[in-house]
Amino acid sequence: MPYITRRKVRFQHCDPAAIVFYPRYFEMINSVVEDFFAEVVEVDFRAMHVERHVGVPTVSLETRFHAPSRLGDELEFNLVPTAVGSTSLTLSIHARCEDETRLSCRLTLVFVDMDSGRPIPWPDAMRQRLVTELS
Amino acid sequence: MPYITRRKVRFQHCDPAAIVFYPRYFEMINSVVEDFFAEVVEVDFRAMHVERHVGVPTVSLETRFHAPSRLGDELEFNLVPTAVGSTSLTLSIHARCEDETRLSCRLTLVFVDMDSGRPIPWPDAMRQRLVTELS
Amino acid sequence: MPYITRRKVRFQHCDPAAIVFYPRYFEMINSVVEDFFAEVVEVDFRAMHVERHVGVPTVSLETRFHAPSRLGDELEFNLVPTAVGSTSLTLSIHARCEDETRLSCRLTLVFVDMDSGRPIPWPDAMRQRLVTELS
Amino acid sequence: MPYITRRKVRFQHCDPAAIVFYPRYFEMINSVVEDFFAEVVEVDFRAMHVERHVGVPTVSLETRFHAPSRLGDELEFNLVPTAVGSTSLTLSIHARCEDETRLSCRLTLVFVDMDSGRPIPWPDAMRQRLVTELS
Repeated sequence: MPYITRRKVRFQHCDPAAIVFYPRYFEMINSVVEDFFAEVVEVDFRAMHVERHVGVPTVSLETRFHAPSRLGDELEFNLVPTAVGSTSLTLSIHARCEDETRLSCRLTLVFVDMDSGRPIPWPDAMRQRLVTELS
Repeated sequence: MPYITRRKVRFQHCDPAAIVFYPRYFEMINSVVEDFFAEVVEVDFRAMHVERHVGVPTVSLETRFHAPSRLGDELEFNLVPTAVGSTSLTLSIHARCEDETRLSCRLTLVFVDMDSGRPIPWPDAMRQRLVTELS
Repeated sequence: MPYITRRKVRFQHCDPAAIVFYPRYFEMINSVVEDFFAEVVEVDFRAMHVERHVGVPTVSLETRFHAPSRLGDELEFNLVPTAVGSTSLTLSIHARCEDETRLSCRLTLVFVDMDSGRPIPWPDAMRQRLVTELS
Repeated sequence: MPYITRRKVRFQHCDPAAIVFYPRYFEMINSVVEDFFAEVVEVDFRAMHVERHVGVPTVSLETRFHAPSRLGDELEFNLVPTAVGSTSLTLSIHARCEDETRLSCRLTLVFVDMDSGRPIPWPDAMRQRLVTELS
């Protein structure tokens, strides 16, 4: 079952054409990944970054922007894990507004020890939760 | 011959791990595309957006982040067109710091009439310049 | 009675010290003003910018940052109009986390015809609502 | 003598009215302060944040936006220290495009030990350089 959350297209997201400037979509996507970790994986970014000195940097992205989003649009983001590696995670993310798909994204991130900068294996509890969510 | 330009990693680009937050890379990439249009295609974004009501929205992106970039790094961006369609343009973009590749990106954008939101053919002068730059 | 809304401090807001980078506070403040117009003044930014070609650009700001905000903090924003001019509006905005004030801001914006760039008088309905909210 | 540097108004800075969205001005201002520290004070943000665990968070701001800036404008930023306290620094910053002043800002920042979060006195070498620049 996908993780679902909503974001409103705000003034700060829009370019001179009054549509979302694509780097702002990635701020939204990052916030969706942030909420997924907090709510589903049950380890939030504060716990990761500040307390444990670990992080989940993105290592690759494939994104298609199917149709523009406009100021005031309500976007529904839909996130589902598609692969869990020993140190990595691949997510499939879609955003739509009503019946129209706006973007689809495949994103791979890696679990990293921020002190060494090296990938480390997912802790069992996190891995368990990720595997449960696999589509 | 690729179009080359440099960007410094600033405080505003960095996350709590003191490395570039990836949505900020796309702001840099967009500014590199902006300079490529102004300097090589010889039609700048002001002329496009404000005077002619046309634009070049990004429709797809594939990006790999090979290694993190840190506060103060000087990045060299290297951009080369790899395909020119009737209304589209595919660019290959790399960034490196000294000998290390930091990101590689393939980006497709479309020439669009901003009033109708529809793709339109590249004007001859723009198309000519783009074709000349093809790798 | 102040208008109250909440914002979570996200990864995208934080700098290498893991505290809010102050330009991101202004993105939050703008989004609070945006919600105030949508919910209290009952004219949202889409209606203003896209349909009516009017806007409310900020012309002056005084801000004090009393204490830093950290990744994961829940901020409560509190907004109250303190003066309504014929074409202007002054807002007092505070943000706090639990019992600690994080920022206080006095912001003046102007109602502007975006085609001419000139200030124009508040329409009666908007003015009425603003005056009702005056502290 | 003021410290002078230039910034181009880019697509990423502009809002649906094709003028600079004011939080983006503060990203520019922060980058101007960053260059002033690197070039005039001769301690860059990487040295401060990464090596010495010190920083210069902004504690107060007064800003007036005199006229809008548009996509493609070349802004000249002009920065001059107006007061150096034992742990603080007040800067006067102006931006103009040709003969038109776009913004004026008075900004106070504090030299802080990032580990304790407490203000600490300017090291002599930094203080010396700041005092020399006082208007």
